[in-house]
Amino acid sequence: MNCELISVGTEILLGDILNTNARFLSKELAALGISLMYQTTVGDNEERLKACLDLAFSRADTVILTGGLGPTPDDLTKEVCADYFGKRLIMREDILEEIKSYFYGKGLRMPESNAKQALVPEDSTVLLNENGTAPGFIMENKGRKIIILPGPPREMEPMFRRQVIPYLKKFSDSVIKSHTVRTFGIGESAMSERVADLLEKDNPTVAPYAKDGEALLRITAKAENEEEADKLISPLLAEIKERLGSYIYGIDAQSIEEATVSLMKEKKLTAAFAESCTAGLCAKRITDISGASEVFHCGVVSYSDDIKEKLLGVSSDDLSRFGAVSEIVAAQMALGIKRLSGADYGVAVTGMAGPTSDDPKKEVGLIYIAVTDGESLYLKEFHGRKNGSCRDYNRFVSASNAINQLRLCILNSPELRSEGSITEFINSYPRN
Amino acid sequence: MNCELISVGTEILLGDILNTNARFLSKELAALGISLMYQTTVGDNEERLKACLDLAFSRADTVILTGGLGPTPDDLTKEVCADYFGKRLIMREDILEEIKSYFYGKGLRMPESNAKQALVPEDSTVLLNENGTAPGFIMENKGRKIIILPGPPREMEPMFRRQVIPYLKKFSDSVIKSHTVRTFGIGESAMSERVADLLEKDNPTVAPYAKDGEALLRITAKAENEEEADKLISPLLAEIKERLGSYIYGIDAQSIEEATVSLMKEKKLTAAFAESCTAGLCAKRITDISGASEVFHCGVVSYSDDIKEKLLGVSSDDLSRFGAVSEIVAAQMALGIKRLSGADYGVAVTGMAGPTSDDPKKEVGLIYIAVTDGESLYLKEFHGRKNGSCRDYNRFVSASNAINQLRLCILNSPELRSEGSITEFINSYPRN
Repeated sequence: MNCELISVGTEILLGDILNTNARFLSKELAALGISLMYQTTVGDNEERLKACLDLAFSRADTVILTGGLGPTPDDLTKEVCADYFGKRLIMREDILEEIKSYFYGKGLRMPESNAKQALVPEDSTVLLNENGTAPGFIMENKGRKIIILPGPPREMEPMFRRQVIPYLKKFSDSVIKSHTVRTFGIGESAMSERVADLLEKDNPTVAPYAKDGEALLRITAKAENEEEADKLISPLLAEIKERLGSYIYGIDAQSIEEATVSLMKEKKLTAAFAESCTAGLCAKRITDISGASEVFHCGVVSYSDDIKEKLLGVSSDDLSRFGAVSEIVAAQMALGIKRLSGADYGVAVTGMAGPTSDDPKKEVGLIYIAVTDGESLYLKEFHGRKNGSCRDYNRFVSASNAINQLRLCILNSPELRSEGSITEFINSYPRN
Repeated sequence: MNCELISVGTEILLGDILNTNARFLSKELAALGISLMYQTTVGDNEERLKACLDLAFSRADTVILTGGLGPTPDDLTKEVCADYFGKRLIMREDILEEIKSYFYGKGLRMPESNAKQALVPEDSTVLLNENGTAPGFIMENKGRKIIILPGPPREMEPMFRRQVIPYLKKFSDSVIKSHTVRTFGIGESAMSERVADLLEKDNPTVAPYAKDGEALLRITAKAENEEEADKLISPLLAEIKERLGSYIYGIDAQSIEEATVSLMKEKKLTAAFAESCTAGLCAKRITDISGASEVFHCGVVSYSDDIKEKLLGVSSDDLSRFGAVSEIVAAQMALGIKRLSGADYGVAVTGMAGPTSDDPKKEVGLIYIAVTDGESLYLKEFHGRKNGSCRDYNRFVSASNAINQLRLCILNSPELRSEGSITEFINSYPRN
């Protein structure tokens, strides 16, 4: 099967909309072993859309189109495609009823214009829309296939997953299966060195890449079926796990927060966060995970020195002597939030997110993270970006590092260095 | 000028990367009055890229390409384009030195492979890369133009803005200028009703749309130059401001948090947040704005009932009688954080973000927001989404609403309903 993608919509050409559909479909098709050579975007224009269909069918046998199924006159994807295959549009009363009841369910009457969405190309397979009013279609004609999907991702994605994938699988003679090994704290080159010999492999291939301060390995296998692909992948995955140890926080879509929350749930542990430069981002990311309330009860965003003293018990002497961005303040914030919350772990982040530093002795990008279980202290100092649009990046990476340090503490990871007793560290900190 | 866009990169065809460049460039070109008819994505493949250039030049006189300027052998955009115009590639020693010093600045030696990036098509204009090693190029040949830009948005976007826009402006005989009026709290249909007659206009056009729980109006004017466009827009903008009043929080790119932070800076006011369902997202969004430390000192993420009592002084009786998601708890959280922080305003959010509700009497999507200046209480109840992937949406929209309520309080907006004295509200709340 040779496939092409056409995104239809003047709003994409104007840059009003980010074309996430093209990415979603490309990824899903790749996973089915169907490779794309081209993606095209065209406006809601009959002549140009026809020209795109001509071109696409000169190179491929299957064309997937998204967008232009709405109720307004400028939506014409279905009309052009039906005409292209010489088919008429037929009013389907059952679909009309469904559209009406969709509006009825919202306490509304169906606007007249929506009736258009019940028109169906003759001889086509109708794809039901569970999240909107526009159905999709599969049309076949002399070995060529047109698949038409609605533009809104919320409608298109489930329709593709549930109704189009089973259809496409019939035409695919191989599957491409891939897994992403997600590591944190090791860096792309150090990670690559540990698996250098594996990067030479052919099937499965192993490829390193970096994203948002994390280093990832993509393992991709091509095989006749899923089972065969799994057989190729699993020994390699085991080998990689062995070599990268607790740097690996998850396989595939899991984020560092998701991995950490499930680890905490499993071990029935709780944590609380005292955040300065990340200012709520750790708490936000942890609670992005549904069910986080089992493991997370409390966070304090201590953006000013005053609040660090008042709520977290940080010493004002230390604040003025060492500054808010210092390991001693991080340690006291961690102990403060641990005591205040009664959680099993206290986690603190303080740093210079930028774009400017308010302390001449400290560079933008300098971040301290402290984690304590009430007994021991685990400190991490790291350096984010110094310039450009560093603020968002530094905040994001600081939160990732804080959550990861917590994860390593829970795992009692050998990568972690303990500073010993936290009270001792704070009491005997060199203050001259 | 007729322009087309070609995104080069197998990683886009595989869905590994979201093509944000196409959107960025489309938007920027639209603003210059340059409309696109097509966008194409093609892999790092000589033959297919050539075919795309052929096709694009059969429809347009200018082709902008992004991607494929990296140091590896599969990066071949520059090579194919130079060849397409019959030009050789020449090693530019000055660029090579710059690339070397880019690495040197990071304490690294330039890898041999990067030398390739100093090869320049003869007779081309070189576009300097301030954020990476790959320069871009403008090539002209018999009235046709090729503009080649690097793939990473961090490198491409400033290069386009600073070096390509001035070049393109020479070829444009009109400008399209648009402004986005951003409102909050009124809803798309109510907003549209207030400006119904303006939506009929031709130049400038006024179009409503909704995004992330906000309602927006896009005003677009086409004119010979910027000045003329401004003249067309400004009376219309004044009229819209008059009609929509304090529902408008900003014009153009400003977010609700940016508008609120600058308002607070201007009035020298501070606010503190007590967050339950948003769990740090308000604090995070406020502190996304550089310089937020002037107006924001403190936030508490009180995810559990226990912390609401302990840190914010919420009554445990009220918590068990009315539940954490209730107006009385919201009011006490707001007063608690106001007292704890000493800020001018205390803001509280509590709600059922979903996907499930832990209180049978309360639906997913039910959110309460309370704002107090210590004297008066301003309450808002609203209903987000009930099902599907509602969690992220409800959290985002709750944070937006909380920040907007704060803004309305500061503006003493007529849209706001005061509950009167907050202590009175709490003391005399009907508890039977």
